[in-house]
Amino acid sequence: MLKVEHIGIAVKDLARSIPLFEKLLNTPCYKQEAVASEQVTTAFFRQGETKIELLESTDPQGVIARYIEKKGEGIHHIAFEVADIEAEMQRLQGEGFTLLNTTPKQGADNKLVCFLHPKGTNSVLIELCQEKKG
Amino acid sequence: MLKVEHIGIAVKDLARSIPLFEKLLNTPCYKQEAVASEQVTTAFFRQGETKIELLESTDPQGVIARYIEKKGEGIHHIAFEVADIEAEMQRLQGEGFTLLNTTPKQGADNKLVCFLHPKGTNSVLIELCQEKKG
Repeated sequence: MLKVEHIGIAVKDLARSIPLFEKLLNTPCYKQEAVASEQVTTAFFRQGETKIELLESTDPQGVIARYIEKKGEGIHHIAFEVADIEAEMQRLQGEGFTLLNTTPKQGADNKLVCFLHPKGTNSVLIELCQEKKG
Repeated sequence: MLKVEHIGIAVKDLARSIPLFEKLLNTPCYKQEAVASEQVTTAFFRQGETKIELLESTDPQGVIARYIEKKGEGIHHIAFEVADIEAEMQRLQGEGFTLLNTTPKQGADNKLVCFLHPKGTNSVLIELCQEKKG
């Protein structure tokens, strides 16, 4: 793994949370992007080589809405950038980790992504991501 | 704020979690350190310019033990490196954030630290940290 690419934070309302994080981080939100497949709208902030990604659900039954219902707003996942996502998925499976998707899927921010089952990672939801080429 | 200095993860048992994160992150734990004032033992891993910090409580009534009892193991806080912690504490107070300590205190890894109240930050526990000089 190369670096912490982003930290995902589940929020109820981007319209309220974007100005809050702009004040907190002292940097503007530079991008918003909908990810239809995940039923979320995302908002990004830069902090060094890492991004902070706010996630608002677009659907009351979506994964982020259900997360907030169960656990409240807060840190949702850590995403690590990898050079070769398929090789890293294979390595982690060999180490006994459980992948939540067996082939890389389309994420926000022009990335291929894969999530690991948090039962095997001290309840930390881990995302692997690789920049899409071309 | 300069970068994500570390991400803190609450764990029950470092002896179990250190080898797990070594496999997950594919990098060795390079340091363990007790922080008596916080009643924790910490273990560090590098990922690019950010560290992953595992936290095990040394006391059943300590803040990490109580966190795990309430919420389970998982991501506990995000720490941002700042150049001047007192100036940043003043800026954030001016923006309406609540500081959990009004003067910087001694943290792990040779840092001065200050925490922000998560009620004002979408339930994300935020740490500011500055490398101690000299």
